[in-house]
Amino acid sequence: MRTMTSPANDRRQRVQAAETGLAILKALTRLGGAASLTAIGNEVGESTAKVHRYLASFVQEGFVVQNPQTLQYHLGTESIRLGLAALRQCDPVRLGEGALLRMRESLETTCFIAVMGNIGPTVLRMEEPPLPVTVNIRPSSVLPLLWSATGQVFLAFTDNADIQQRARQEYAAGSADQRALIPNGPQAIAALCGTVRAQGCAIVRDMLLRGISAVSAPIFDANGHVSAVLTALGASSGFDFRLDGKVCSQIIGEAASISAAMGYLSS
Amino acid sequence: MRTMTSPANDRRQRVQAAETGLAILKALTRLGGAASLTAIGNEVGESTAKVHRYLASFVQEGFVVQNPQTLQYHLGTESIRLGLAALRQCDPVRLGEGALLRMRESLETTCFIAVMGNIGPTVLRMEEPPLPVTVNIRPSSVLPLLWSATGQVFLAFTDNADIQQRARQEYAAGSADQRALIPNGPQAIAALCGTVRAQGCAIVRDMLLRGISAVSAPIFDANGHVSAVLTALGASSGFDFRLDGKVCSQIIGEAASISAAMGYLSS
Repeated sequence: MRTMTSPANDRRQRVQAAETGLAILKALTRLGGAASLTAIGNEVGESTAKVHRYLASFVQEGFVVQNPQTLQYHLGTESIRLGLAALRQCDPVRLGEGALLRMRESLETTCFIAVMGNIGPTVLRMEEPPLPVTVNIRPSSVLPLLWSATGQVFLAFTDNADIQQRARQEYAAGSADQRALIPNGPQAIAALCGTVRAQGCAIVRDMLLRGISAVSAPIFDANGHVSAVLTALGASSGFDFRLDGKVCSQIIGEAASISAAMGYLSS
Repeated sequence: MRTMTSPANDRRQRVQAAETGLAILKALTRLGGAASLTAIGNEVGESTAKVHRYLASFVQEGFVVQNPQTLQYHLGTESIRLGLAALRQCDPVRLGEGALLRMRESLETTCFIAVMGNIGPTVLRMEEPPLPVTVNIRPSSVLPLLWSATGQVFLAFTDNADIQQRARQEYAAGSADQRALIPNGPQAIAALCGTVRAQGCAIVRDMLLRGISAVSAPIFDANGHVSAVLTALGASSGFDFRLDGKVCSQIIGEAASISAAMGYLSS
């Protein structure tokens, strides 16, 4: 039986030539997907003779094509297929599991990841600290767009008329207490979204649940769409909801790391 | 100096282990981007012990991650980056050069590739046979949406209100001869687009230029958008504009091949 020790740590159980090959593909990626043999050799720090043999193999397998006029090497169709397959199975919930565990540990808050379901923002995975604040939220819970930090992030970063319309309906159906939190009426929803975008996160106090505060940040996919939202939630007493505080910083940082793993390039 | 003979044909000048590695990555791609060690081994026809060593290298380089719970292997962030770089430098004009040369040879027609510019469909690359028909079209020419086969393909396969609006403006500004070709008025533009989509190509006789016929087919990118249009054009006398004829068949086939190289998966 294989042990659970990662063989990636043991150089003898790997294949050196495969790693050299992938390093050359990464170099071509960093060079924008097209470059000369000399430029690739310089980028990867290997001789052109050696790089040339690897490129011949990449061409053979369809990962790279060589332009016969310019002699430049370009990433080819198999590279596109590999990337598209990677994108299709790229799952913010799976990629975010580590972040949830780290946040539970260091922030000692309830943390979850939500995606946009057919009804609204839906919690898919949740981690709670040893002494959690008791909330009526669990995986499968659907959250409001306007009255939750999670929903506000989807609202602020999604350019979709249907979602904006649903937020106005939520406002119209909101309680007097809730409406008092957006005192300038439904036209102030746009300003709220602007604030969330400028902050890079939504901060909500006592809005959805009395005595509960939450901070949420967006997870972007490779196309720049919000694919999920990362949230930390705790009792308002003792919850650090300052924008430059520990909770906001860690959530924004963890969400950015997951976005990077999804292929998102922040500009 | 290197010779121009492709080293890809000479096994000794390649790297066997790199090719085995890429074959394993292709197998994982075919399996949807996530699979067990056993499934990958079966797919690629190698022992699990061998595949395991390669996967350890892929994990080391970030092309693959292993889910610690399920032990499944997933394509990772570096695979996404590679694919996105390949997509960004993926150029229908470069990928279509071979098709233009083949079409010029076997159809003996003028052939070109056009993309949608800021003014309209714009010819970027053109190949002419030894005895070309004289037309006032060259690289940089902007073609109409409605009165050219090229434009009709962009119109039929692009879901964009602005482009539809420009087609109606062209109709309004069209000559009496041109309007006579779309006898049921501007509302017939939608029916024309439906025909083009059903055929997979646009066939135009004497519409833009008297005595000139043209056939055009769409080149799709990985997102299913029309990234370019491939066109063959010749004197109407002797031009085979039958849908099941030689010209239409070859253009549709060549355009489909370029689409596949762009990462497009036809459904």
